[in-house]
Amino acid sequence: MNSNDIQFSRRAQALTSSVIREVLKLTEKPEIISFAGGLPSAQTFPVAALQAACERLFADSPAAALQYAPTEGLQPLRQWVAEKHGVDSANVLITTGSQQALDLLAKVFIDPGSKVLVEAPTYLGALQAFSLSEPAYTEVPTDDQGLQPEALTETLAAGARFLYTIPNFQNPTGRRLPLERRKELVARARELGVLLVEDNPYGELRYSGSPLPSLHSLNPEGVIYMGSFSKVLAPGLRLGYMLAPPAIHAKLVQAKQASDLHTPSFTQRVAYEVLKTGMLDSHIASVCDLYGKHCAAMLDALSRHMPEGVRWSRPEGGMFIWVELPAAIDTMALLEAAVASNVAFVPGAPFYAITPRNNTLRLAFVTVPPQKIEEGIARLGELVASHLRALQPADAVAAVQ
Amino acid sequence: MNSNDIQFSRRAQALTSSVIREVLKLTEKPEIISFAGGLPSAQTFPVAALQAACERLFADSPAAALQYAPTEGLQPLRQWVAEKHGVDSANVLITTGSQQALDLLAKVFIDPGSKVLVEAPTYLGALQAFSLSEPAYTEVPTDDQGLQPEALTETLAAGARFLYTIPNFQNPTGRRLPLERRKELVARARELGVLLVEDNPYGELRYSGSPLPSLHSLNPEGVIYMGSFSKVLAPGLRLGYMLAPPAIHAKLVQAKQASDLHTPSFTQRVAYEVLKTGMLDSHIASVCDLYGKHCAAMLDALSRHMPEGVRWSRPEGGMFIWVELPAAIDTMALLEAAVASNVAFVPGAPFYAITPRNNTLRLAFVTVPPQKIEEGIARLGELVASHLRALQPADAVAAVQ
Repeated sequence: MNSNDIQFSRRAQALTSSVIREVLKLTEKPEIISFAGGLPSAQTFPVAALQAACERLFADSPAAALQYAPTEGLQPLRQWVAEKHGVDSANVLITTGSQQALDLLAKVFIDPGSKVLVEAPTYLGALQAFSLSEPAYTEVPTDDQGLQPEALTETLAAGARFLYTIPNFQNPTGRRLPLERRKELVARARELGVLLVEDNPYGELRYSGSPLPSLHSLNPEGVIYMGSFSKVLAPGLRLGYMLAPPAIHAKLVQAKQASDLHTPSFTQRVAYEVLKTGMLDSHIASVCDLYGKHCAAMLDALSRHMPEGVRWSRPEGGMFIWVELPAAIDTMALLEAAVASNVAFVPGAPFYAITPRNNTLRLAFVTVPPQKIEEGIARLGELVASHLRALQPADAVAAVQ
Repeated sequence: MNSNDIQFSRRAQALTSSVIREVLKLTEKPEIISFAGGLPSAQTFPVAALQAACERLFADSPAAALQYAPTEGLQPLRQWVAEKHGVDSANVLITTGSQQALDLLAKVFIDPGSKVLVEAPTYLGALQAFSLSEPAYTEVPTDDQGLQPEALTETLAAGARFLYTIPNFQNPTGRRLPLERRKELVARARELGVLLVEDNPYGELRYSGSPLPSLHSLNPEGVIYMGSFSKVLAPGLRLGYMLAPPAIHAKLVQAKQASDLHTPSFTQRVAYEVLKTGMLDSHIASVCDLYGKHCAAMLDALSRHMPEGVRWSRPEGGMFIWVELPAAIDTMALLEAAVASNVAFVPGAPFYAITPRNNTLRLAFVTVPPQKIEEGIARLGELVASHLRALQPADAVAAVQ
């Protein structure tokens, strides 16, 4: 067959490999201190608990763990999720990681040209999943406290299929939406008839501050909630879930059935065997203890090594710090120099659906040990300073120094 | 939020629950002898081998099995698949079951209104997956030997994104495409520039006859091949794979990254640990031994219990027998009476993309023990005979008897 005969779909023609994916390839060299990855630290994986769970599973119910299973997910796991969130298990759908939840949302809500509201910036993987259905994005502005609810005007909301938001320790900014903004966002969305999609993979990784109510808890009928076990158990299990009002849940189940029939029975049962022991709370506390120290180490290193004119977020949880450099610096270009200096990050531009801010970048702090964080941020700080010197007239540099 | 505010996508509005799904709900009562399910027999699952694999995995590489992993799949598993098929591992993509492969095909090839060629009848799950991308189906006629290659004319082929076919022990018919037809199909597809998609979940479940070459082996550049571990290891692992030419592989990987990032590392490693022991060939032989006896039992029961005027396929492998009743009988209506008589099957109509033949039905023979097969087919035969009596004038009934 001649390759000219292959006719891809419009969406496939538009597909390009993710920038993060290409960056991660660059940063696989062991000598690089990489703040680029979005991986949790492997030392947090509850290996012994998972091993014990596997042993129980083979002792008790191996056939059920290996057979086809209902699309909605393993009933005891759905019940566990339902109790955690105070909902009916009939509204819980288990997904093959949170990424699949994004794919199902696209399938159920997005036609070519449909208006979809996203934060600026937002999670790159969500943009990838939604874009397969060819939406027309509209960006909702954010500031240091996250999404600005007053920006959700009647004009912005008109015809939107949904607003996608990550209220807790957002990827990529690390920001958490304050209580007053949560209330206002939910009130405005309800008034304007905008469905909210609340993605919450990081909410339990909280190192300081008080817990805040989910958007879903403020208005269950108007919010689809996405949870994940990737950051609190292990991402290699690929387990997430969605809470949705009944009419939406039914469509999501049908879309999931067409997508992969069901999430592996085996991983669902292993996870449930671990969760039912009640170990999750103490496990999360130990993860938070570790990550909180990493976060503090990076914030401290940034304050000592970054030249004047550089701003960054001060997360109370999650995995990421968002850095804003002086406007003249393009972080995509800076990355090449950084990799040459054996330090890596993710440029901020790909996290914007429409209008990139090219002077931003994302740092992940969870997998690099604190002394390496110090070393990597020192290198990055020098690099930024030298780029600023190269860009600016001599007296301006003096002012920056 | 008012439910009137929810605006689903066009494809979601068209979604309805699968008929098979609804039938399976009906047949969950233990007193029903169900030939409806498409499940493999749980007694074939290699539980001891999988348990040993889990133990090795926790002893050797637990962190890698629990961490994020490349979208393409676990490299040693890709290599195992590549060696089995004599291809380069760079052309292998591991999928979350075969169903995901169908979803990825839809994403990469189908725009709304795209022409897609399917066998009549074909696998219902493929129609579900493709339909989310709103194709315009064209049916390729089949007969007792499967797809009719001479039907693939220039007119039929014009503009088709691909032709989807299941050459081995097809779901739902159990038919296997003979060698000469394979050669002619591949030659015509090459000449007309039609991409072939060869779905082969059942090919290794062969109870008689000689092996036949895959379409892929006859023209690797013009065929996307889909394999599955669901029928030879265990479906609860949700593991399948695709072989595709490089340009197509790259698009499939990007679509998969947006769909679920990657198939669970954990299940991929467990499966590879089993496969590398070399146990698969002898395991498949034992599965074939069991299923072959079931198949023979059902064929024998059909020949004794079905009234004149009923035809059925005589599979050399797989899981299904396809039954064609006299034209006056609608199997959807027959199913209600069958469930009342405590026997179940799947009506044939949903397996047709466009023009259903309402007098057909699918019987699965692998999960019901032989003496229950006898009992169930006897009940079904009586039911068909009584429906024929009710439909026909008295003298015609006499002739049938």
